[in-house]
Amino acid sequence: MMQKDKNVILADSIKRLLRRGATKSLQKIIKKTHAADLSLVFRELSKNNRLKMFNLMTDPEQKGVLLSELEESIFLELIAQLDLKVIVEIFENMAADDVVELLGYLEEELADAILEKMKNEDSLEVEHLMSYGEDTAGSIMVPDFIAIKENMGASDVISALQNDYADVEMPFYIYVVDEYGKLVGVCSLRQLVVVHPQKPLKEFMATDIVSVNTYTDREDVAEIVARYDYLAVPVVDDDNRLVGIVTVDDVIDIISEEATVDILKMAGVGEDYIETQTIFRGTRIRLPWLFTSFLGGLAAFFIIGGFEASLEKYAYLAAFIPVIMGMGGNIGTQSSTIVVRGIATGRINTRDLWSVVSKELAIGIILGLVYGLFIGVVAKIRFFSEPLSLQLSISVCLAVISSMSVAALVGSLVPMLFEKVNIDPAVATGPFVTTSVDIVSVYCYFMIATLLLGI
Amino acid sequence: MMQKDKNVILADSIKRLLRRGATKSLQKIIKKTHAADLSLVFRELSKNNRLKMFNLMTDPEQKGVLLSELEESIFLELIAQLDLKVIVEIFENMAADDVVELLGYLEEELADAILEKMKNEDSLEVEHLMSYGEDTAGSIMVPDFIAIKENMGASDVISALQNDYADVEMPFYIYVVDEYGKLVGVCSLRQLVVVHPQKPLKEFMATDIVSVNTYTDREDVAEIVARYDYLAVPVVDDDNRLVGIVTVDDVIDIISEEATVDILKMAGVGEDYIETQTIFRGTRIRLPWLFTSFLGGLAAFFIIGGFEASLEKYAYLAAFIPVIMGMGGNIGTQSSTIVVRGIATGRINTRDLWSVVSKELAIGIILGLVYGLFIGVVAKIRFFSEPLSLQLSISVCLAVISSMSVAALVGSLVPMLFEKVNIDPAVATGPFVTTSVDIVSVYCYFMIATLLLGI
Repeated sequence: MMQKDKNVILADSIKRLLRRGATKSLQKIIKKTHAADLSLVFRELSKNNRLKMFNLMTDPEQKGVLLSELEESIFLELIAQLDLKVIVEIFENMAADDVVELLGYLEEELADAILEKMKNEDSLEVEHLMSYGEDTAGSIMVPDFIAIKENMGASDVISALQNDYADVEMPFYIYVVDEYGKLVGVCSLRQLVVVHPQKPLKEFMATDIVSVNTYTDREDVAEIVARYDYLAVPVVDDDNRLVGIVTVDDVIDIISEEATVDILKMAGVGEDYIETQTIFRGTRIRLPWLFTSFLGGLAAFFIIGGFEASLEKYAYLAAFIPVIMGMGGNIGTQSSTIVVRGIATGRINTRDLWSVVSKELAIGIILGLVYGLFIGVVAKIRFFSEPLSLQLSISVCLAVISSMSVAALVGSLVPMLFEKVNIDPAVATGPFVTTSVDIVSVYCYFMIATLLLGI
Repeated sequence: MMQKDKNVILADSIKRLLRRGATKSLQKIIKKTHAADLSLVFRELSKNNRLKMFNLMTDPEQKGVLLSELEESIFLELIAQLDLKVIVEIFENMAADDVVELLGYLEEELADAILEKMKNEDSLEVEHLMSYGEDTAGSIMVPDFIAIKENMGASDVISALQNDYADVEMPFYIYVVDEYGKLVGVCSLRQLVVVHPQKPLKEFMATDIVSVNTYTDREDVAEIVARYDYLAVPVVDDDNRLVGIVTVDDVIDIISEEATVDILKMAGVGEDYIETQTIFRGTRIRLPWLFTSFLGGLAAFFIIGGFEASLEKYAYLAAFIPVIMGMGGNIGTQSSTIVVRGIATGRINTRDLWSVVSKELAIGIILGLVYGLFIGVVAKIRFFSEPLSLQLSISVCLAVISSMSVAALVGSLVPMLFEKVNIDPAVATGPFVTTSVDIVSVYCYFMIATLLLGI
């Protein structure tokens, strides 16, 4: 049975049991269901039923995973219904990096109150992670790593693993440190069992180890883990001392989130847009992003207004506005999307600015020629009997060519330049490129037409 | 030093050494550089230099990783320069699932020739994976899993791991099977060392194990691994026999690729677009996607043509076309992007069709009112002295409201409906939504204006 169908069935039976008030059965289901699946069910429940379900949960660890998996808006709504004591107990049972993430969603006052009530050792760890900047390796690393001195022999390492590190859930890698705690190598479980038991780590460990710094951006961390197929990457401080690891499950979340953020930015919806937000918040977030488009529309309005004389003489000039704007807008979106995604995935390097942009421009000119001729022919046929039909169709053809060429040029150049000066290229795209292309297209069209038609 | 900068320096020194023909130094660099890093350098080299570098590589395993990491176009160019014998040797040293992927890029004839020359045991494994459909769990699974009978005691399991499974690079999980090879449980390394040495697996293994089928879609596989933070997910056949695992490093690639494909589809660039393609291929791929936009432009052309009388009387009606189309187009893109990405990340369920669509519609109406009033006021001010300026500004205002409402409705409804009937919602978006919104906007505008202005 598909995972999706399974969750639909789960949600349906939980809803049925909630209606019947079948507490015992609900508790049984909760116990045997992964919190990640419960979070999907929570989406479909009412505010009251969510609280009911949450109160039926007994394992603070399961509650913690659930909170981490919930969407921000549902999480905030639920937290507001909970006692501070309950929240504190859950947070104390969570991994520090997850606590940091959740605290980030809360009002500062509430976050401080929670930290204050948490056991000292737990809150110190959280505050330590919070001291690293947002979106850095430091803020997402976990301390569950295995670090062993380089002089230890293979068989001693194995017994250390069984004794000192028995609580490390998944021994991704065995990191090797020198006497100062500096990272010097790495070795796998497999190597430990195949070498001579007395052989010290430093004689068989791998020394070409890739690490990140506490302040490395999380996107770069994700990129490294993905490139080398790592399960975890070690995080070191400025003195190369091992202070944590970032694990692959967090990297998966980062990659998916960053892709979503890029997509939303390109569509001009900001980066915080979450589907479950209220109509009011949704409107407020989207309103300013449409303002660029509004200004662009106004600019086009005044440009066309300036050609009123041409329009009064040849009213059908207006009929070509949509196709010229549409073709320019669409090829501009193509170009900017290819470039933005290419930069995000590392396939496009800003050092190749001119080769990328000139290729896009070439494609824009070719496609402009193709569609320009199409549309020119349509214009010629439609206005066959009119006196200046040839001039008109040539104007339209040239307008499409210039609109599509400019769009491909702007669409690829703008995100490349933004990336060069460290502005997020995804923001540059969408409304910005489309709007500027609209303005240029309309202007070129009326200029060319006015000249050729001799108005 | 940042990873990115490191690779720039690496590329520069390799280029310098290639110019100097410093074979020895190049070989040294190759030996100590990860193939994933070399693949980044390859992007910046000429065709000839790529071949030179490749021939300097001596480790067939490193060559295999490099080939897997190269972009399709560079891979194909390089393969065309290699002897069949060389290719076969590399493929024999690669994991079967990677071979399947690379063979998929090649012409059938060449792929068959390679398979024929490969050692029987290697080619059989590859052909076995190829027998599962493309993009299924079966085609991406690897056979490097640990499967142990449920009656074995903990200490025997540990010695089996050290002897029989010493070549499993990363013992993600220990899967437990019954006497027929059916998957019955899973246990972690950590559990093995903490339980009594004689305790049989079946008494302490976890039995609530999530598995996928050989024909499960790879996107669903990725979703499961991401949701439960797994390092690998077991793949079973129809009889629940364990036949392979899909590991988290492949899942990362899937998530990143699927996001790219979605982004490119939404921008109307197809799903195969790769930045390094030639201008000719790039043009050919993008040409048909622009055709929808072309047809939409033609439709708008004929619609506006039908209102030629109105335009001849009120030429400045044309000046509002861009702003009305632009506002509709942009909010339509917002809505469809939110819905498409929401479906992809599982945040939006098609069961909630009406609540999602009605929310988008509500947002569309509110934003339409806001911007409609803005634009109406601008129109009133601009044409203050004209006789019908009030009617004109009301027409423009109503046109913006209807355009933005329709756009939000179409933008959210179309991808939801497509998903319901199993058409990829990402394809539905982009050109399709934009174009239909353009046509509707233009039509509504001229209808309203003609009515209100009494033409």
